[in-house]
Amino acid sequence: MAHEAPFQLLHSELIHYICKTADGADSENGRSVTKLENMGFRVGQGLIERLTKDTARFKDELDVMKFICKDFWTCVFKKQIDNLRTNHQGIYVLQDNKFLLLCHMSAGKQYLEHAPKYLAFTCGLVRGALSNMGVKSIVTAEVSVMPACKFQVMIQKL
Amino acid sequence: MAHEAPFQLLHSELIHYICKTADGADSENGRSVTKLENMGFRVGQGLIERLTKDTARFKDELDVMKFICKDFWTCVFKKQIDNLRTNHQGIYVLQDNKFLLLCHMSAGKQYLEHAPKYLAFTCGLVRGALSNMGVKSIVTAEVSVMPACKFQVMIQKL
Repeated sequence: MAHEAPFQLLHSELIHYICKTADGADSENGRSVTKLENMGFRVGQGLIERLTKDTARFKDELDVMKFICKDFWTCVFKKQIDNLRTNHQGIYVLQDNKFLLLCHMSAGKQYLEHAPKYLAFTCGLVRGALSNMGVKSIVTAEVSVMPACKFQVMIQKL
Repeated sequence: MAHEAPFQLLHSELIHYICKTADGADSENGRSVTKLENMGFRVGQGLIERLTKDTARFKDELDVMKFICKDFWTCVFKKQIDNLRTNHQGIYVLQDNKFLLLCHMSAGKQYLEHAPKYLAFTCGLVRGALSNMGVKSIVTAEVSVMPACKFQVMIQKL
């Protein structure tokens, strides 16, 4: 019964709180997005620690990404990633056709400009989770038609 | 698998974010607690709307309180309230013997002074939920031994 609602509503409230003090300037918006990304990073770190407590060691990078797409995504967003693609050279694209944190917004292009705020936390979440598994990455997101979105993970080789 | 973790970690991160700017003065701490309470209020309003969408009309105030203790609490904290008491004159005491948002802290008295920050959001959550069901209230919380705590709801008669 609405198991995802507390997280989703708290996330919305957080965005509201962080962005209401921003004055609308691009620099302020950028700062809000960075704050959200950082908070996501720390939550992702904590979360992956709990989730991997009893799992077997991961074989390789792809194995780690599959864990993110299935177990990790289900824990946070109550569904799996719908599609995972990779170029086998360190770029992964995770597609969610009905992303929880965009579901409460109208489809169509009306609110598209607000999407970055609603994706920043999750970009950080993925980056934090990967970081705790020893995988350094850059994570970005894009939306073309809500509530579908794609997260691109670029692995940073050491 | 760790279903409560995303909400719990996001809640901790929120407290960290709101309180880190406070300078430690009592007035600042009070302000942080008020902010958290207000955020809880709005989340509580949103949540109860979703949860009561398909429920039958509530008989009376006690019936509303029982819904908070069972369905509402389970949705957010993954367990029911352990004990509900009332003086039948508008005061209700909800006891949770293992409150999710205190579970990550050591038991004992060491962190007792931090408890108000960790309870403010939930006080607002209950107040917001009741408010949307037409019940105006004041909600306070107290902890004697972590992670058990009691929420006192005082109904404000119109």
